[in-house]
Amino acid sequence: MKPVVVRNIKRADSNAVGTMQALGVSTSHEALGRSGLMKPYMRPIWAGASIAGPAVTVLAQPGDNWMIHVAIEQCQPGDVLVVGCTADNTDGMFGDLLGTSLKARGAKGLIIDAGCRDVKELKDMGFPVWSRAISAKGTVKATLGSVNIPVVCAGALIHPGDAIVADDDGVVVVPRGRAEKTVAAAAAREANEGEKRAKLASGILGLDMYAMREPLEKAGLKYID
Amino acid sequence: MKPVVVRNIKRADSNAVGTMQALGVSTSHEALGRSGLMKPYMRPIWAGASIAGPAVTVLAQPGDNWMIHVAIEQCQPGDVLVVGCTADNTDGMFGDLLGTSLKARGAKGLIIDAGCRDVKELKDMGFPVWSRAISAKGTVKATLGSVNIPVVCAGALIHPGDAIVADDDGVVVVPRGRAEKTVAAAAAREANEGEKRAKLASGILGLDMYAMREPLEKAGLKYID
Amino acid sequence: MKPVVVRNIKRADSNAVGTMQALGVSTSHEALGRSGLMKPYMRPIWAGASIAGPAVTVLAQPGDNWMIHVAIEQCQPGDVLVVGCTADNTDGMFGDLLGTSLKARGAKGLIIDAGCRDVKELKDMGFPVWSRAISAKGTVKATLGSVNIPVVCAGALIHPGDAIVADDDGVVVVPRGRAEKTVAAAAAREANEGEKRAKLASGILGLDMYAMREPLEKAGLKYID
Amino acid sequence: MKPVVVRNIKRADSNAVGTMQALGVSTSHEALGRSGLMKPYMRPIWAGASIAGPAVTVLAQPGDNWMIHVAIEQCQPGDVLVVGCTADNTDGMFGDLLGTSLKARGAKGLIIDAGCRDVKELKDMGFPVWSRAISAKGTVKATLGSVNIPVVCAGALIHPGDAIVADDDGVVVVPRGRAEKTVAAAAAREANEGEKRAKLASGILGLDMYAMREPLEKAGLKYID
Amino acid sequence: MKPVVVRNIKRADSNAVGTMQALGVSTSHEALGRSGLMKPYMRPIWAGASIAGPAVTVLAQPGDNWMIHVAIEQCQPGDVLVVGCTADNTDGMFGDLLGTSLKARGAKGLIIDAGCRDVKELKDMGFPVWSRAISAKGTVKATLGSVNIPVVCAGALIHPGDAIVADDDGVVVVPRGRAEKTVAAAAAREANEGEKRAKLASGILGLDMYAMREPLEKAGLKYID
Amino acid sequence: MKPVVVRNIKRADSNAVGTMQALGVSTSHEALGRSGLMKPYMRPIWAGASIAGPAVTVLAQPGDNWMIHVAIEQCQPGDVLVVGCTADNTDGMFGDLLGTSLKARGAKGLIIDAGCRDVKELKDMGFPVWSRAISAKGTVKATLGSVNIPVVCAGALIHPGDAIVADDDGVVVVPRGRAEKTVAAAAAREANEGEKRAKLASGILGLDMYAMREPLEKAGLKYID
Repeated sequence: MKPVVVRNIKRADSNAVGTMQALGVSTSHEALGRSGLMKPYMRPIWAGASIAGPAVTVLAQPGDNWMIHVAIEQCQPGDVLVVGCTADNTDGMFGDLLGTSLKARGAKGLIIDAGCRDVKELKDMGFPVWSRAISAKGTVKATLGSVNIPVVCAGALIHPGDAIVADDDGVVVVPRGRAEKTVAAAAAREANEGEKRAKLASGILGLDMYAMREPLEKAGLKYID
Repeated sequence: MKPVVVRNIKRADSNAVGTMQALGVSTSHEALGRSGLMKPYMRPIWAGASIAGPAVTVLAQPGDNWMIHVAIEQCQPGDVLVVGCTADNTDGMFGDLLGTSLKARGAKGLIIDAGCRDVKELKDMGFPVWSRAISAKGTVKATLGSVNIPVVCAGALIHPGDAIVADDDGVVVVPRGRAEKTVAAAAAREANEGEKRAKLASGILGLDMYAMREPLEKAGLKYID
Repeated sequence: MKPVVVRNIKRADSNAVGTMQALGVSTSHEALGRSGLMKPYMRPIWAGASIAGPAVTVLAQPGDNWMIHVAIEQCQPGDVLVVGCTADNTDGMFGDLLGTSLKARGAKGLIIDAGCRDVKELKDMGFPVWSRAISAKGTVKATLGSVNIPVVCAGALIHPGDAIVADDDGVVVVPRGRAEKTVAAAAAREANEGEKRAKLASGILGLDMYAMREPLEKAGLKYID
Repeated sequence: MKPVVVRNIKRADSNAVGTMQALGVSTSHEALGRSGLMKPYMRPIWAGASIAGPAVTVLAQPGDNWMIHVAIEQCQPGDVLVVGCTADNTDGMFGDLLGTSLKARGAKGLIIDAGCRDVKELKDMGFPVWSRAISAKGTVKATLGSVNIPVVCAGALIHPGDAIVADDDGVVVVPRGRAEKTVAAAAAREANEGEKRAKLASGILGLDMYAMREPLEKAGLKYID
Repeated sequence: MKPVVVRNIKRADSNAVGTMQALGVSTSHEALGRSGLMKPYMRPIWAGASIAGPAVTVLAQPGDNWMIHVAIEQCQPGDVLVVGCTADNTDGMFGDLLGTSLKARGAKGLIIDAGCRDVKELKDMGFPVWSRAISAKGTVKATLGSVNIPVVCAGALIHPGDAIVADDDGVVVVPRGRAEKTVAAAAAREANEGEKRAKLASGILGLDMYAMREPLEKAGLKYID
Repeated sequence: MKPVVVRNIKRADSNAVGTMQALGVSTSHEALGRSGLMKPYMRPIWAGASIAGPAVTVLAQPGDNWMIHVAIEQCQPGDVLVVGCTADNTDGMFGDLLGTSLKARGAKGLIIDAGCRDVKELKDMGFPVWSRAISAKGTVKATLGSVNIPVVCAGALIHPGDAIVADDDGVVVVPRGRAEKTVAAAAAREANEGEKRAKLASGILGLDMYAMREPLEKAGLKYID
């Protein structure tokens, strides 16, 4: 595989991305037909952050953060940097210096299928990171990878420009071409959920609200006193 | 195994349960003779909660939360819902809608050997959950399980009505028939611990307080300068 | 292996240790030539603590905390207790009573390649612990181990008296004989980082600041529009 | 929990057990309604063995095989020894001496949720073991557990006398009271499978044999050329 | 995501695939520029098999093998079936009946990022499977997925028709459009390796054969007597 | 840490090493006082091999096998190469070319806390390897490490020249200075075991042979009919 940097990518619609950020990961994932989710080992290094933005993608070598430096130049304000690795790795490939640089470019956050360090500093500067590990392990700059090619990150496939949504529930990828439809479905779903929440809070049971009693009986469920 | 819902269960004594909540997981587990603990991968989705209550149990299929809806109807104020799965699974089988419904029933919290989502919303509403994972992965409602049968959850055996104690140290199960004896033992232990704590804080060594020097020497321990 | 307690150990220079605490784990690890790091499964039981001190080491049996009692007597103010196990184990070998005793001796914290319990109490008393697990599982006092011999803890080798640095990024071991050189290298590195941080914050790219464009081209990286 | 040895247990019907051994784990598990399976980390230490027998159960402490010695006396010819632990552990709690003793009692094999050693010797003597790990780690004889009480082993609940079936596919537990019904269901299933196998081998598709085309279409599956 | 079955796919060149089978996984992976490898948790259920073929892909739900039945119809002689899941799962989604059917279609083997069962039967019939687990856990047929869309399996991206190579070293994916170039590179590499092997067997060191002494010295390696 | 190669090391006594190979891992580990064992994730890539020899040690970077080439030159006939990594890694750092070279030097086998590839070729040439993973993932030759310094491998500390014993039960390290004493203890133990084995095979119980009945009763064990 030739190492390349693709400079011009198409980004997911910014209105759709803005709405997704408000709707969050679980709702966006549902609206997408329950796909696109990264594996649950991807966790925020500090709680409470919630972002969305088009992906600038990196395929990196384990323990080598050379390509992250290359990728930062390709980031525009609002982007989310997504780093996949060619092998499982927990080394601290990202720290506060890279965070300072990404923030200066206007990037909204980092998703990395490897380790992150300088956790306290990144939290203090309000730069959100989702990673598979926290590790101070230093890395080298020895082998090329690529920027803005399709990558697999934490079990999900990301094309450059796809919308990334990340919050305390994890990280989901919405393909660029489906961003607007997903937002529409998610908004409808969300409206619907408000109503359901009120009913459930009043004591109405899901069994009744969703009319589950009959299908449960048909499936063979027995009640015993 | 026929899918069933057992409606009438006997619940652990509420006074005993109340005392256990104050004593916490580690003390209750010790008082029980060091048994009944769930595996340490069970973690609170937010820190600081501390609950105790009789168990309503669910045996669910991985990635299928149909039986949680069924179980909510069986919950009474003060109960703790405990969900085991027929296979290891991290899907987000529980979220804020189910949390709203459980809270409306007066349930004190959820213990689930699978994933949980809507972490921020559940924290905001003060509903505590202990789970093996956080995941936005959506689930289906396709296959029956059972409610209020004995289940294995995170390596522990729970009968319906057993007392569940959960806090930042994890989750412990106290069999219903042993709740009162356990509480008595735990209270004695706790009283004892306050005195020990004061001695240790004053600089007295455990070696002396527990009279360990002689058994250590007998076991063959040598000091070298 | 005969079970022994070595009473007189040489401790890493206290000035060096003090500086390391201010510099933190990632900087110390880098200054040491990227070695000495414990595996990233070692996590603080509460966030925000930052310590450094000479190691008092324990080799314990899994599920047996007898030797921790023995080791506390060997601790001096400023020490960090480091516990390795002869087999992987997550039992709660350390709790608030041992924490009270260690604190009374002036120890700064605990590093344990096993489980810890009484998390809330330890946090409330401000006693920091880095462990591989949180577990209420009780332990026995049945089999001897050793104190102040070289131990392997979370993949790192620690000699008694080595400097331990621990914060939110993890735990690093600086060999006693290299503490001062490491501090000098770390301080130089840190000074340098402040300057770099300012440049990156102003928008200068790492690609230019580190003069990476030419080596990247030589390595064969291609840009595609 | 008081440490006890229960001497008189009721064993699953020996005819039923004999049939289960011929039918194997996957068929028995299906006939049981897809329950009773131990977690897939339980693997045979050598391939090709296939056993079934009533369970003699042990609850042991991690790294302590004292109770296995106690349990051997309770084994009768044809029994399977099942060992659960109070905490996750991979120590080599069983080796060729214990294997020799168990074999002399006529026991058919061992299921242990911990480590096993002397793998070559056990294979040479034809004694089958399913374990979570292979480890030479030595163990102590220091703390009591119990024999022939209900135990959780690798996520499954076993009562003394339940039928255990184990082969290359893993380990399944058939509750004693359901052994005969399970065998009847399994035999029916097996007969049925022979016929299906012949059809599939002749090139008939499962899609047609199971009449899946209509339900797939109803569920919304689309074919694209 | 709409569930679809894509019927007409382009398959990797059969000559290239045949050569890859002879060259094996490690050589093919190297020739591809060290990419395309599935994670190392993918292991053969029996040792010694070696296959290559174009991929028919399946995206399945965890614990649900409905789509495997659908996919079998799309297989042609020489194909390799590749199954990815929407969430981590170890259930036994494939057994000897499906193996009989796949074999009747002329398929060469199965790659599944989930569990497999009937290990002995599949070995006896000589049908090779690479999976993440062995488990007898039964599955349902309740939720649709898709066939012949791009899927992520064990961390690798597979498009329908890509060449799959699998042996005792693992599983590698060669994109269809690069199959011939990869084969050419692999063959060259292999020829080269024979010569190297002979030199190394004669006692010539890699240090000399690869002329590493000078770069090692430049990098700063010191020899100490 | 300066990268160095130490050329002259003292090797464990060859007679002692020869005896250890015959006694095997479990017996040697017991004779050593139950220490020195590598973690049980270290498994042979093919079953049945049994080796012992003095260690030539390597500290390597993850995904970088440069130092293995350097270390081969330091191997003498009978040595065992032991490779530790500075971070967890499963890449295939060793294959049949390196195996051919090591074999030509007379080395007896490889212990590597990383991945291995060319499994079939290594088995065919009878070269034994114990590793944490099997992976075809290619590696680079970019960063220095060291040869013949103390290393941590799979949780065990190895000094150059220490005796390594490896078989189907795992890998144990016997410190060079304790090799002869360990062998003496192991031989005594082994003689003793033959007698015990005969007794146990004749039906005598461990309970009686080890005189456990009284201590069990004193510890509080109760028998229930």
